[in-house]
Amino acid sequence: MKLLITGGAGYVGARLARTLLARGTLDGRAISQLVIADQAAAPADLLADARVQGRVGKLLAHCQGLRDEAFDGVFHLASAVSGECEADFELGLASNLDSTRALLDALRHRAEQGATPTRLVFSSSVAVFGPDPAVPFPGIVADDTLPTPQTSYGTHKLICEHLIADYTRKGYIDGRAARLMTVTVRPGRPNGAASSFFSGIIREPLAGEESVCPVDAGVSHPLTSVQATVDGLITVHEASREAFCGRTALNLPAINCTVQQMLDALEAVAGPKVRARVKFQRDSAIAGIVANWPSGSTAARAARLGLKAPASFEAIIRQYIDDCRATHPAALKGLDA
Amino acid sequence: MKLLITGGAGYVGARLARTLLARGTLDGRAISQLVIADQAAAPADLLADARVQGRVGKLLAHCQGLRDEAFDGVFHLASAVSGECEADFELGLASNLDSTRALLDALRHRAEQGATPTRLVFSSSVAVFGPDPAVPFPGIVADDTLPTPQTSYGTHKLICEHLIADYTRKGYIDGRAARLMTVTVRPGRPNGAASSFFSGIIREPLAGEESVCPVDAGVSHPLTSVQATVDGLITVHEASREAFCGRTALNLPAINCTVQQMLDALEAVAGPKVRARVKFQRDSAIAGIVANWPSGSTAARAARLGLKAPASFEAIIRQYIDDCRATHPAALKGLDA
Repeated sequence: MKLLITGGAGYVGARLARTLLARGTLDGRAISQLVIADQAAAPADLLADARVQGRVGKLLAHCQGLRDEAFDGVFHLASAVSGECEADFELGLASNLDSTRALLDALRHRAEQGATPTRLVFSSSVAVFGPDPAVPFPGIVADDTLPTPQTSYGTHKLICEHLIADYTRKGYIDGRAARLMTVTVRPGRPNGAASSFFSGIIREPLAGEESVCPVDAGVSHPLTSVQATVDGLITVHEASREAFCGRTALNLPAINCTVQQMLDALEAVAGPKVRARVKFQRDSAIAGIVANWPSGSTAARAARLGLKAPASFEAIIRQYIDDCRATHPAALKGLDA
Repeated sequence: MKLLITGGAGYVGARLARTLLARGTLDGRAISQLVIADQAAAPADLLADARVQGRVGKLLAHCQGLRDEAFDGVFHLASAVSGECEADFELGLASNLDSTRALLDALRHRAEQGATPTRLVFSSSVAVFGPDPAVPFPGIVADDTLPTPQTSYGTHKLICEHLIADYTRKGYIDGRAARLMTVTVRPGRPNGAASSFFSGIIREPLAGEESVCPVDAGVSHPLTSVQATVDGLITVHEASREAFCGRTALNLPAINCTVQQMLDALEAVAGPKVRARVKFQRDSAIAGIVANWPSGSTAARAARLGLKAPASFEAIIRQYIDDCRATHPAALKGLDA
């Protein structure tokens, strides 16, 4: 079978590609071709696989060509992120709305020509949820919590959920949307995202660096690992339509975890010296943004598909450490110090 | 002040225009210009008013020009209707999504040039609601019921609600979305819409014609009058942002009314002979569609703005009769027979 991953060079996308290539199958069929479309080049290990074809460029530019190319499955992960959309409104609209619409219309064109509707998994986001004065905000968001997004990014994700539901209803695609929770521990450097600290307060201490936590220790948030996220996307792809249940997006599982619990887990895994590298220095701008985020989530529908959250936040940290040992051990300089 | 009504030649739009012209003011300011944009020409009585300018053509084609034209308020009613969107998917996308996006981007362009954000009222619809297997469907839909639209029309309306909320959050417009309930009694002829009978079973008997009701007498639905709808749109326009409460769309008021109650009201207003012109002949296709519609609605936020549903379904029928007497008495041929 031939698969497409949009945004396949990103952190989640590349992990998804590696997992699919290692499995070798999806829906019980051998994966013969995996196209990775992204604005950045795919990692070298992926491009070295004979089944992989990398395509670099804007998704919007690729979509016309997709009208004449059959895929058995699409994972649509490409997206401008939250901070980018707030900084550049037009970029967000083009990257998140226009690109998705063009992708869906390419797949619709194929179905209108008689092709089997392409199965498509869309990575939506916990960012669809947020407090609006008109609606009581539950804090803990469920599959059927009313989304009232408070960012352009969350708005775009929600709009795409509904487009995908309607293209599916019409039989143009076989689409499913899964809401990703906040993925930790992301490798790399701190970035401008308000959520950056959720990775930073673990990653930097493990690398031997100090990290500043800009929110109170009691702040809680739904967190998950990159591997649990990837497993969720694959399971959602493999689910029957009946098992997916309707066309409404579902939440992927997460651990509802406070900063305090994150740091306790860090100490349990890496010791008190590592934990001591985290300092609290409240940033009222970041704390104000985070105060509008869900404090947790539930994922009843994902659970019915057999999906589970990582066993503990300690397990998430251990996975990060294992990943670093395999690929960039320098990120663990602080662990032996 | 200068106002724009998109879709201003339609049934609700023209009534809105007449009501605004008769009031002469909006938000306490004199209405000096009223632009009616529609694919069809506006009714002659509106065009005869010196304040009115009609613009005929597709909204999408007008929007570039709107970047250089200041409006103090916009009522955005233009839309392909439910049946059209189901029959022609591309038409629905172009008429309901692309046109709204172009309109919002024209207003955004003005705000980016330093203009005060334009107040915009969007006519959303009860069609945003519907049953999805993943979500318990309450039947009676409230302001904060989770929308899971089951038509392209409902999907487009919901997507526009969220675009308008985000453009408002960013300060590009001062947008509000109000969900219209089913408007009865619509004048004219039966059309292909599944909801056509909600007007037909009153209109045809009053005109002396037989009418077939395709659903059971126990079917309930949120119904309102065109004037209550217009009053709702005006009140939502005049509300302060605080009074509108948040950016989430609100439901306009309606009477939750069964077919039985509609016919009882018809008999009370027009007598048993008129009522006897309605025959029941179940159409399982239409009954199946209607079974997926809300059986009623609540409108708590609209009530806080002082909006009320029509006093009774009898009052709705009497309003229709008064309208016909004034403009097309031939529609009441059955009343005196």
